[in-house]
Amino acid sequence: MDAPSPAMILLSATLLIYCPDRKGLVAAVTDFISRHDGNILHLDQHVDTQENVFFMRVEWDLATFQMQREDISPRFAEIANSFDMTWQLHFSDAIPRMAIFVSKESHCLYDILYRYQSGEWQVNIPVIISNHPDMGDLAAKFGIPYRVVPITKDTKPQAEQAQLALLDEFKPDFVVLARYMQIISENFVTHFPNRIINIHHSFLPAFAGAKPYHRAHGRGVKIIGASSHYVTAELDAGPIIEQDIMRVDHRDSVEDLVRKGKDVEKLVLSRAIRYHLNHQVLVYNNKTVIFA
Amino acid sequence: MDAPSPAMILLSATLLIYCPDRKGLVAAVTDFISRHDGNILHLDQHVDTQENVFFMRVEWDLATFQMQREDISPRFAEIANSFDMTWQLHFSDAIPRMAIFVSKESHCLYDILYRYQSGEWQVNIPVIISNHPDMGDLAAKFGIPYRVVPITKDTKPQAEQAQLALLDEFKPDFVVLARYMQIISENFVTHFPNRIINIHHSFLPAFAGAKPYHRAHGRGVKIIGASSHYVTAELDAGPIIEQDIMRVDHRDSVEDLVRKGKDVEKLVLSRAIRYHLNHQVLVYNNKTVIFA
Amino acid sequence: MDAPSPAMILLSATLLIYCPDRKGLVAAVTDFISRHDGNILHLDQHVDTQENVFFMRVEWDLATFQMQREDISPRFAEIANSFDMTWQLHFSDAIPRMAIFVSKESHCLYDILYRYQSGEWQVNIPVIISNHPDMGDLAAKFGIPYRVVPITKDTKPQAEQAQLALLDEFKPDFVVLARYMQIISENFVTHFPNRIINIHHSFLPAFAGAKPYHRAHGRGVKIIGASSHYVTAELDAGPIIEQDIMRVDHRDSVEDLVRKGKDVEKLVLSRAIRYHLNHQVLVYNNKTVIFA
Amino acid sequence: MDAPSPAMILLSATLLIYCPDRKGLVAAVTDFISRHDGNILHLDQHVDTQENVFFMRVEWDLATFQMQREDISPRFAEIANSFDMTWQLHFSDAIPRMAIFVSKESHCLYDILYRYQSGEWQVNIPVIISNHPDMGDLAAKFGIPYRVVPITKDTKPQAEQAQLALLDEFKPDFVVLARYMQIISENFVTHFPNRIINIHHSFLPAFAGAKPYHRAHGRGVKIIGASSHYVTAELDAGPIIEQDIMRVDHRDSVEDLVRKGKDVEKLVLSRAIRYHLNHQVLVYNNKTVIFA
Repeated sequence: MDAPSPAMILLSATLLIYCPDRKGLVAAVTDFISRHDGNILHLDQHVDTQENVFFMRVEWDLATFQMQREDISPRFAEIANSFDMTWQLHFSDAIPRMAIFVSKESHCLYDILYRYQSGEWQVNIPVIISNHPDMGDLAAKFGIPYRVVPITKDTKPQAEQAQLALLDEFKPDFVVLARYMQIISENFVTHFPNRIINIHHSFLPAFAGAKPYHRAHGRGVKIIGASSHYVTAELDAGPIIEQDIMRVDHRDSVEDLVRKGKDVEKLVLSRAIRYHLNHQVLVYNNKTVIFA
Repeated sequence: MDAPSPAMILLSATLLIYCPDRKGLVAAVTDFISRHDGNILHLDQHVDTQENVFFMRVEWDLATFQMQREDISPRFAEIANSFDMTWQLHFSDAIPRMAIFVSKESHCLYDILYRYQSGEWQVNIPVIISNHPDMGDLAAKFGIPYRVVPITKDTKPQAEQAQLALLDEFKPDFVVLARYMQIISENFVTHFPNRIINIHHSFLPAFAGAKPYHRAHGRGVKIIGASSHYVTAELDAGPIIEQDIMRVDHRDSVEDLVRKGKDVEKLVLSRAIRYHLNHQVLVYNNKTVIFA
Repeated sequence: MDAPSPAMILLSATLLIYCPDRKGLVAAVTDFISRHDGNILHLDQHVDTQENVFFMRVEWDLATFQMQREDISPRFAEIANSFDMTWQLHFSDAIPRMAIFVSKESHCLYDILYRYQSGEWQVNIPVIISNHPDMGDLAAKFGIPYRVVPITKDTKPQAEQAQLALLDEFKPDFVVLARYMQIISENFVTHFPNRIINIHHSFLPAFAGAKPYHRAHGRGVKIIGASSHYVTAELDAGPIIEQDIMRVDHRDSVEDLVRKGKDVEKLVLSRAIRYHLNHQVLVYNNKTVIFA
Repeated sequence: MDAPSPAMILLSATLLIYCPDRKGLVAAVTDFISRHDGNILHLDQHVDTQENVFFMRVEWDLATFQMQREDISPRFAEIANSFDMTWQLHFSDAIPRMAIFVSKESHCLYDILYRYQSGEWQVNIPVIISNHPDMGDLAAKFGIPYRVVPITKDTKPQAEQAQLALLDEFKPDFVVLARYMQIISENFVTHFPNRIINIHHSFLPAFAGAKPYHRAHGRGVKIIGASSHYVTAELDAGPIIEQDIMRVDHRDSVEDLVRKGKDVEKLVLSRAIRYHLNHQVLVYNNKTVIFA
């Protein structure tokens, strides 16, 4: 048996930071932690030398940290301000709330529900929202509220209002489009900036938009892919979080590409969700820094 | 939407053949098909020049084939005998029955049940057998009979008798060990030669046996893998059907290898099952020919 | 030592065929071979069910074949005509002549010259043509004629005429653009239809055209790729022969993508050349069938 | 054109450190750098929580660093001693000297020579040593001294003495076995601890020792691999630096595995050499930490 021993939730804090690069940034942050007896568990940093921007993720053990939890944010703010930092602070015992949007395809939803139920992820799923009733049975099997908001071309704005009302009710921290297949309006996106994760069934930027597998087949590609990205106003053009590929050949019909692609889509989406859950993603200039 | 149109089950016949290589083999088989107005859908052949063995898989449309279904086998036998062929004949409307053995891990079972429920596979699952009750709820969600046969070191022979009795009752065509984690006796294997599919959580032949991820971590490998194979009397030494890998690095703990490995295991096992279901596998000399 | 024993050139014939699909095609071709005591070494076929086109590659041993070599073509033509086949016949002892075009980058040229010199490929390289003198020393080391044809925006047509004159002199069977970096005119392409192999340094159709790595970096992709294709009149839009990819991340600068990409480019181009040398490629509808 | 602008050699210093983990390590090192106006270019750290060992690589710009180059080592030693660190200090303008051992196979040597000549690597190659004359012409083409030291079963100790004498003459910093195919004695290894890089043509620990492709073929694996590692006294059991794989199938003969494997071998070895050249490798407990 390889099963790990029951997960002990280690109480830790994680800082995600970016700011103009200058000398002394790492020293300032790590000194803040070590001065109060914090032990660093993970530290990763990156400098975009072209844009002169500094990125950092640091996670430290709170067990020995000599500071009240509620004091960390105001005390760190002093350092952050002096370096003009944009920053987030997360605690490991806060379980994020993830809303899921689906349509009729089940492969991504199954993969997510397995990770949720098996305890692979520390996450709550307050609601699954769909424009179709098809996945209702599956949601019910896992005891998750399922809400259907039908959408037609004419009712799209009202449907989005209904969806936003549901999100207001269930209060997710972020939204996952698990093959939702509907275009999200710019207005909707502004409610969850860099907090809507989509899976697109192509190797972006190739085949953005509709029917990517049909177009991949038409072009005779030898490899197909999937891309998970944060949703922005422009279709399939948001910051890419994760991508992966699968080899195909002339024997594969469009249906084969669809089938094979599903295996890539579900893994790519689930990896992107994991990065987001673990606060391993920073978005800058429509690109992501992934502290993997 | 990329969803394929509802699958029309094309009625076809598939021949799997191996025999000593000699001239005229392909011509003899394809002439048998074309002489009776059959249209070949797929044909693949392979010659092991070292062993001088010929392998072939051919699938043809029965719509126009001028022979009663029940006549195909006796008529083809004449050709087969003249070439000393070992062969199987399958019809596309025969839905195979697959029994599943599990222990406490759910990732492979979820992946299988998704493909079963979504219609990706044409398969029946008459029973799930386990040495633990843990997966009973999941089986129940999908309406599949679940039988628990506890196993201790002392009761292994009796437990296997009970399992064989269950298989006798549910009459599967083949058995899948979906991370079952128990060693199968030689006696058990003889009941299902080349019809028990296992998933081993390493890149065989590296790390055969127990705790492969612990050993991979100890060795400091940069890539982990999973291998699906037919079970033979020798542990983890049967014919390999499919393998795949995932990159890891020094930051990955044993628990990370276990977690990342699950994503490889479930895909590798499901691909192996698909090959078996589609009659794409020939076993020879403890190796497989995969007509992919 | 894993070195194979000295390659014995087995004398074989290879037929590449495509035609409208109908019953009896495989039987007709294999009967032609077996009737004259030919032993099939490899046979692969494919049916594009959407377009109703049949593709086939068959290679057979000439040692026992009861037909003069010069008779094969006229005799097979009778069968070919009756099925409306487009076809090619190749003999294994004909060593193809490959002209190489380069610019200033050496990675693909090194990889090609290694395979040429080590005997991995059966190929002659009558000439290397470039718009720059940079690779002349490398060509000289391998004793291959090197011709420089400078190109400016204004002299492009004349330069292409000079190149065509060189090709007329050195009589290659096909041309490889080993990172040549110049756009080939439609007129030039018509002289070598499906016989000019290019390597494009992106995962086509993403980033066709100039500076693909800069654009990949700007888009923040997590994977880069390379694509080898036959050159057609439309830039980077010809039939794809082979593609492969490499994972990158936010730490990779444009220069890193360029460097990492070179390793993919050279392998993808060399695999495509190998397919072409072995007569494993059929082009149809701007796509390739690769009999690998 | 994607070619980077001519490389400006940025003058930087790199520290590689490991020591027992404790609080304040990152702060102490980064404070040392920032206190003297050094700007950190790259910082990566890792904690082996099982062994309680801390690993770190930090590279900083010397342009603004307010300390004489020769003072850095003695000044940092004070910090290092207080934390019980094992450490190395490297400067970016020191060009490492790499000796190469070869036998009769050319693929790895070509790949290395391309990177050397094209300027991809900052490295000197003072000598190539072989037990056969075969690669002498290739070495001559690149103007590198080539020395032949024949080896028979009976003369192995003397041959190694002759090799060591050559290394004493040419004074390499490290040695690359580019498919050298001879077992190195324990005595030889002690002269270059963690400074002899080998490429083994299998996915270690599978198929350590002789004829790995033959054994991979016999086992019927679906994937082959290559592993680059530091040589230790135990055959093919040293710390793994890099691994990669390639998919194969039943159609691949042993010769095909040998041929396909070469493409993996050369890339894996060259990646391992690059990590070593860039001081990105720390060895601990027979495993590597790769600061990629």
